[in-house]
Amino acid sequence: MIGDSERAARATLTRIAEPGDAELLELVQRDGPEQVLDDVRHDHIATSRSARWRVRLDRSDPQTDLDSAASVGARLVCPGDDEWPEQLGGLEGSDVRSHDGRGGVPVGLWVRGRRRLDELCHTSVAIVGSRSATPYGTTVGGDLAYGLALEGVTVISGGAYGIDAAAHRGALAAESATVGVLACGVDIGYPRGHVALLSRIADEGLLVSELPPGCAPSRLRFLTRNRIIAVLSQGTLVVEAALRSGALNTAGWAEKMMRPVLAVPGPVTSPTSAGVHQLFRENRAELVTDAAEALAAVSPIGINLPPVKRGESRERDRLSEVPSQVLEAVPAVRPAAPEHIAALAGIPVDEVTRALDLLLLRGLVEHRESGWRLARSERCEEPAGGS
Amino acid sequence: MIGDSERAARATLTRIAEPGDAELLELVQRDGPEQVLDDVRHDHIATSRSARWRVRLDRSDPQTDLDSAASVGARLVCPGDDEWPEQLGGLEGSDVRSHDGRGGVPVGLWVRGRRRLDELCHTSVAIVGSRSATPYGTTVGGDLAYGLALEGVTVISGGAYGIDAAAHRGALAAESATVGVLACGVDIGYPRGHVALLSRIADEGLLVSELPPGCAPSRLRFLTRNRIIAVLSQGTLVVEAALRSGALNTAGWAEKMMRPVLAVPGPVTSPTSAGVHQLFRENRAELVTDAAEALAAVSPIGINLPPVKRGESRERDRLSEVPSQVLEAVPAVRPAAPEHIAALAGIPVDEVTRALDLLLLRGLVEHRESGWRLARSERCEEPAGGS
Repeated sequence: MIGDSERAARATLTRIAEPGDAELLELVQRDGPEQVLDDVRHDHIATSRSARWRVRLDRSDPQTDLDSAASVGARLVCPGDDEWPEQLGGLEGSDVRSHDGRGGVPVGLWVRGRRRLDELCHTSVAIVGSRSATPYGTTVGGDLAYGLALEGVTVISGGAYGIDAAAHRGALAAESATVGVLACGVDIGYPRGHVALLSRIADEGLLVSELPPGCAPSRLRFLTRNRIIAVLSQGTLVVEAALRSGALNTAGWAEKMMRPVLAVPGPVTSPTSAGVHQLFRENRAELVTDAAEALAAVSPIGINLPPVKRGESRERDRLSEVPSQVLEAVPAVRPAAPEHIAALAGIPVDEVTRALDLLLLRGLVEHRESGWRLARSERCEEPAGGS
Repeated sequence: MIGDSERAARATLTRIAEPGDAELLELVQRDGPEQVLDDVRHDHIATSRSARWRVRLDRSDPQTDLDSAASVGARLVCPGDDEWPEQLGGLEGSDVRSHDGRGGVPVGLWVRGRRRLDELCHTSVAIVGSRSATPYGTTVGGDLAYGLALEGVTVISGGAYGIDAAAHRGALAAESATVGVLACGVDIGYPRGHVALLSRIADEGLLVSELPPGCAPSRLRFLTRNRIIAVLSQGTLVVEAALRSGALNTAGWAEKMMRPVLAVPGPVTSPTSAGVHQLFRENRAELVTDAAEALAAVSPIGINLPPVKRGESRERDRLSEVPSQVLEAVPAVRPAAPEHIAALAGIPVDEVTRALDLLLLRGLVEHRESGWRLARSERCEEPAGGS
């Protein structure tokens, strides 16, 4: 656990700069939070942004923020705290940045709920996707979350409408904790329609944000929030995403950190799957169709291998070559004599007769007075193959 | 053009062995059709299959087959004929074989229709898929065929129910020739429900088969037929395929010949897309979502590049950093004063005022007596991003 004055300094820093202000976050990593705050206060920082930080510094009061957090069951988790998740280090380095230079390790995370953040994030998958999801997307998103939660995986998402909500609800349905990473304060019920869902997430899991209590969401905050979703999870799974979806932004953060990006395909006629299909076409995501495949994709190599999907194996597939060819030559409806079947199959009659006896035993053909034909069960399969 | 006696020999060979009898086809490539026939007739071939070939040889009459072909407007196209498609050489080599050793260059192809086989196959894509296709599959299959046909690509398929039919019909709707490769004689209306479709394909394109007139389809014949579909086309596009679909077999032939395999994803909840998704998971197919992407995938590198799909670009995306951040801080409904917006955005008030004027010009914000708020058009977008 870190000391009170460092925590107060970090609380202040979460208020004076926008999340993902890489310049500030790098200064904090280099000089420590108290020093940086002091430098801002005394105008010792030679950067154009410093003036902006001071605009907010005058109005900030860390104790008020920490108190109002406490009043909703929230706290500021900081580097050095036991529950600070190790994987947040994934955000270090100048290559983990948005196109406009945003990024960096947060100075702290406001966390609401009773569970430990590091424990919940230890084995976790982010499930993200379109807010304007289709019924297909919410069904699949919910099922995947439910299946992963049953395997002990924490589902992390953004608390938004659509796929996010389906993912949180799927995890909760499996009586699993889930983590909602917000682009506003953890005390803010945003979006309005999710007040009940967010409070359930806080009760059974955690709400997380870089922003102090009371802050409203903004587009910029959504985009920088996405990096927190990506860094807290072992992999990011995109369920539905239109071409400009924010979910692709989250996938981009996972990519920058060399974390697996998984995605679920959908109909090519559905605009909400177009962004996902583009990920595949650019070889930027692994295609998964169920929870077992998603689990395997975020597990160490060789662990949690999914069963390879196979179609049903049929009696006829287990035949050796001659009976198999004879079966091909047996008519579906009008019975034929062995000689006729022999000519059709290009196999001598005595071999054909032996094969027909075997096929009769296996229930694949019927013997009628006028000859042989397929058993009823095989007729609907005739001719198998297609093109 | 080859001589009559060689053509008669090849016609006979199509009758005495099953399609894809690699042993026979290799003998023909080595010794020529007339020599092989002579050897079979006089029992000079030391192979167990030779007895089977003789079973049918006794009943075969090439002139009858050639005549009955002619009576339905069909002919036997042979290696050496002008219209023999060069790409059939793709079937040479012992690595282009099914798991049970079938394959090989056909001794000839029975072709029904007025068009030249080589011309139709010059620029062509095979579109194959499930017989028990969903409405999604037939819609997409038909649209892709239509789109490719409009670009001058010949659509090749197998004449079956489901995706095959949708592909042929899509091509015909674009007034394009299409090629149906059958697992029975080109005079046989199989499946029964496709008699009219097959005759339209023959009228405006071609029906093709390794089998002589009168032959019925069989499972084995479907599987060896699939290699003809794959070899005649520049690439094979799978639209819907269950885990054991014959369409995957066609894709397998294309793979063995190092030809592109393309596939269309679908809902993961649809069993008829499970085989396609497995192709993607095994990195065996390129995902395509429309005709332009399919065309690019079968074209030489750099030719017919598809447009990269992008979402709509919005006015707000073209803003520079400060106006963009100010816009984020402008409330959606209750107007706010510039000072309030400045504090929220963390930007000095004079910069905020300049930015608000710009945003007003661009139609992104409104100015009310009580302050600034988002223009109506921007409100429904607030907050953009999602997770």
